[in-house]
Amino acid sequence: MMYTIGLDYGTNSVRAVLVNAANGRELATAVHPYETGQEGIILDSADHNLARQNPADYLKGIEFTVKEVINKAGKANKDFDAGRIIGIGIDTTGSTPLPVDKNGTPLAMLDEFKDNPNAQAWLWKDHTGYSEAAEITELAENKHPDYLAKCGGTYSSEWFFSKILHCLRVDPKVFDAAYTWVEHADYMTALLTGTIIPQKIKRCRCAAGHKAMFNDAWGGYPARDFLAKLDPKLGQFRDTLADVTYTIDQKAGDLTKDWAVKLGLKEGIPVAVGAFDAHLGGVGSGISTGKLVKIIGTSTCDMAVWPVDRNLADIPGICGIVDGSILPGFWGLEAGQSAVGDIFNWFVNYIQPGGSAAGSHKALTEEATKLKPGQSGLLALDWNNGNRTILVDQRLTGLLLGQTLHTMPGEIYRALIEATAFGALTIINRFEEYGVKISEVINCGGIAEKNPLLMQIYADVTGREMKITRSTQTCALGSAIAGAVAAGEKSGGYDSFADAQAAMCGMKEITYKPNPENHKVYKRLYLLYKQLHDAFGLASYSGQMANVMKQLLDIKDRVNC
Amino acid sequence: MMYTIGLDYGTNSVRAVLVNAANGRELATAVHPYETGQEGIILDSADHNLARQNPADYLKGIEFTVKEVINKAGKANKDFDAGRIIGIGIDTTGSTPLPVDKNGTPLAMLDEFKDNPNAQAWLWKDHTGYSEAAEITELAENKHPDYLAKCGGTYSSEWFFSKILHCLRVDPKVFDAAYTWVEHADYMTALLTGTIIPQKIKRCRCAAGHKAMFNDAWGGYPARDFLAKLDPKLGQFRDTLADVTYTIDQKAGDLTKDWAVKLGLKEGIPVAVGAFDAHLGGVGSGISTGKLVKIIGTSTCDMAVWPVDRNLADIPGICGIVDGSILPGFWGLEAGQSAVGDIFNWFVNYIQPGGSAAGSHKALTEEATKLKPGQSGLLALDWNNGNRTILVDQRLTGLLLGQTLHTMPGEIYRALIEATAFGALTIINRFEEYGVKISEVINCGGIAEKNPLLMQIYADVTGREMKITRSTQTCALGSAIAGAVAAGEKSGGYDSFADAQAAMCGMKEITYKPNPENHKVYKRLYLLYKQLHDAFGLASYSGQMANVMKQLLDIKDRVNC
Repeated sequence: MMYTIGLDYGTNSVRAVLVNAANGRELATAVHPYETGQEGIILDSADHNLARQNPADYLKGIEFTVKEVINKAGKANKDFDAGRIIGIGIDTTGSTPLPVDKNGTPLAMLDEFKDNPNAQAWLWKDHTGYSEAAEITELAENKHPDYLAKCGGTYSSEWFFSKILHCLRVDPKVFDAAYTWVEHADYMTALLTGTIIPQKIKRCRCAAGHKAMFNDAWGGYPARDFLAKLDPKLGQFRDTLADVTYTIDQKAGDLTKDWAVKLGLKEGIPVAVGAFDAHLGGVGSGISTGKLVKIIGTSTCDMAVWPVDRNLADIPGICGIVDGSILPGFWGLEAGQSAVGDIFNWFVNYIQPGGSAAGSHKALTEEATKLKPGQSGLLALDWNNGNRTILVDQRLTGLLLGQTLHTMPGEIYRALIEATAFGALTIINRFEEYGVKISEVINCGGIAEKNPLLMQIYADVTGREMKITRSTQTCALGSAIAGAVAAGEKSGGYDSFADAQAAMCGMKEITYKPNPENHKVYKRLYLLYKQLHDAFGLASYSGQMANVMKQLLDIKDRVNC
Repeated sequence: MMYTIGLDYGTNSVRAVLVNAANGRELATAVHPYETGQEGIILDSADHNLARQNPADYLKGIEFTVKEVINKAGKANKDFDAGRIIGIGIDTTGSTPLPVDKNGTPLAMLDEFKDNPNAQAWLWKDHTGYSEAAEITELAENKHPDYLAKCGGTYSSEWFFSKILHCLRVDPKVFDAAYTWVEHADYMTALLTGTIIPQKIKRCRCAAGHKAMFNDAWGGYPARDFLAKLDPKLGQFRDTLADVTYTIDQKAGDLTKDWAVKLGLKEGIPVAVGAFDAHLGGVGSGISTGKLVKIIGTSTCDMAVWPVDRNLADIPGICGIVDGSILPGFWGLEAGQSAVGDIFNWFVNYIQPGGSAAGSHKALTEEATKLKPGQSGLLALDWNNGNRTILVDQRLTGLLLGQTLHTMPGEIYRALIEATAFGALTIINRFEEYGVKISEVINCGGIAEKNPLLMQIYADVTGREMKITRSTQTCALGSAIAGAVAAGEKSGGYDSFADAQAAMCGMKEITYKPNPENHKVYKRLYLLYKQLHDAFGLASYSGQMANVMKQLLDIKDRVNC
């Protein structure tokens, strides 16, 4: 009996799972909420775009959760032997870069910077760099359109260079004090394997390819002179980025003695190269060609893969198409919706319709379940947090249409669910328009497990059966699988992901099949959704509505500054 | 000391005021809520378009309120003498037609029909006849565009013939049993003066001109053969409509002995020809050329007058331009917003954001008051109940745009107020585009009196000072003024409305002046409002968004039937 550990650093907490390497079944899980800020996030009431995290929380989290799963597994099974843990895998959110000094110490851990939000980890949903993102996009369009071709045609404010350039602009002291910036995932694997000294760090393909325009076609990261045009100091920063990145079948290194002691693990076991949570969630969901994996949480990540030896066009609006970012040997295609659960949470927590009892997710879901498709006359856009795919535009906002004097909260709640389903279909359609057929949809994440109404609406809107992963921790399971592959077959793991996934992944018995009547109504509603989507989302739309949300945001910015 | 009584039949209740004819000051008021249905309205949970009233409530209401004001005035002042009441004026909602038999008895009062909603009074906001309205509009466009030129180019589902034709279609038994249909206002004045036998009834110009295409230019009501094209029976119904209608300076007749006894009044005092509540509200607000009177309640009525001897173009979208409908000798111009207070009530009562305490009008107004124009990034359309002016389209719905994950209920509440202000400005602009300069805005109604935030936003959005009438019962005051004019100077009343208004009307001291900074921001926001307005409201808009709300309503109708 061999085991692996998967660590999953989410937006508000980190969790560890300890799984049986033979069948993927969980022996124990543990969660540690980050302590700093509001639910683990450092916010700024004057700037809704800001979202940071304290790297110290990451270290506390791994110590607590790894010891806890070992402890729990030991209590549940007296034969359990932590010495049979053969590997570790780690996923994190991203792009979540943090500045580190020459010793690999996060600036946030230095006295000088410990209270400075700019020295912390810049969480994926930090959008402070939106104007830098526009600047990078413009420069790339003019000088290097190839840089953008594989990442949807637009460089996002959520990504690596937007954040670093923004820091350089607003807080040069922090920028100057940093030797380099590392993604959260790379920081973790390097830390555990003693490769944190920046020159040795094995940066992961996943983050580099999806968020930092890394591509072997042009020698890795964007050229020094390209970055220098944005700012000479950004050109210098380029020198700290190696020209090679690594896929998750590689080891980041071996667990150091120090960390082995801290965590109660055997020294020298392999730590797999890291990846983003969603990508390892794809692995843990059994992703393969033709299967779309949707990780539905506060936002979604939609993952697909495509063999590198088969033709694949650039797909506009898809956030990234990266060789080996999910599975080695496959293009990893990443799409997503900027807010899904967050929209329902906004409605419940901020608007709280009907008060706390009548306005709970449960009560609103009950009301929404009574309705038929189209019955409310409502239609919404799922853009309360912008649109990641296929518009790649954070400067978009929500829209609700069709209200009468009789519209009830349960109707609005359902319209918001439907809006996210229409957004999901728009992503599927975009994949298929460019030849990536989606024949199966695998869902994971808390909402998929707990909300049958949402799953049924997704089936009815997309016209596709919705499956749900057996594990409730697919990201962490994916990391554990990576740990098993890093260990290899001779250590009791696997030599390929296909073998590991076949053994370790599974689906729940319940699935959601499309109701043909509902699908018919939703086909009609989707045409209207798409009309609004294009009118408000595309500058090229003939009716020129695309200015409306942007001008409102511009007016808002002026009032607030 | 002479007195007059004004009766004001509103949507949920009737009120009477007893005023001093010399200065318009109130001696007493009384209110009687209608007893039937929900807050006086007969509804149908399966059809939100339906809104009816029980005529018996109208009779109970007048008896109670007139006796009550006399009683109250007597208690307050022992010298009070009901014999010095020189006239009565009456206003009602409209178009609110009811079917009556050959004796003038409402069908609703006959055993056979008493429980049939189609035999009741069809309240102004009943929209069941929306497809008949479209049919009438189409026929008029083809055969008699002149019929529509003075009523905004579109015949509304709220109006006389739409309702009667709809009844004919869905309930021919009721239609066949009716000798004729009379407006609520005409029913009341005819009843009190014994002229209810249909051949004698003096129908008022106001209702006929604004809601039934009455115009001397084509000999009164629409031609028999025109109506017969819609249905031969509607042609027959035309024979029951006289070719003359009357303005409010005319007497409908003298109070009958029976009613004098019932009400405690002197037999034979004049009852003025009736009019709609808003129009007499205009009179009670001191309307004259250049002054826009806004009656702000659940919906608004916006009134202007223009001398009949001066040029006036047809103004598209203005619900009616009728000679003498407000003041004799002036064109009466009627515009309005289908929902204002109703939108705020919807948000508070149905959505109840934050629960009952945090979601009250008071609490939301407090939150909204803290915000600056443009600060929320929100923009709404005020179409939850369709758009009366300038689009004349009930098949439009609400829209809210700009939501983020941080949007708060107070921000939405303010956006809804602003939406109604933008709607108000759209009406003012339309008047001015066609030469009817609006130099002063006089507001009346509960919201104008009680919500300083709303009044300030209206001033800031329109760039015009907002004044508020002194009387809190301007419609009833206007009716009382009509009673005084019907009595004439020699009975202690007046021979002209100008004299009567000069003596009896007044403004509150407080006014709201536009803040130039706010006006600047709102000018920019209004451009965006107008863009949404035109895109979703005009079929001719290049981006073709006008289908969206209509198709959603069509899908909704199919699901619900």
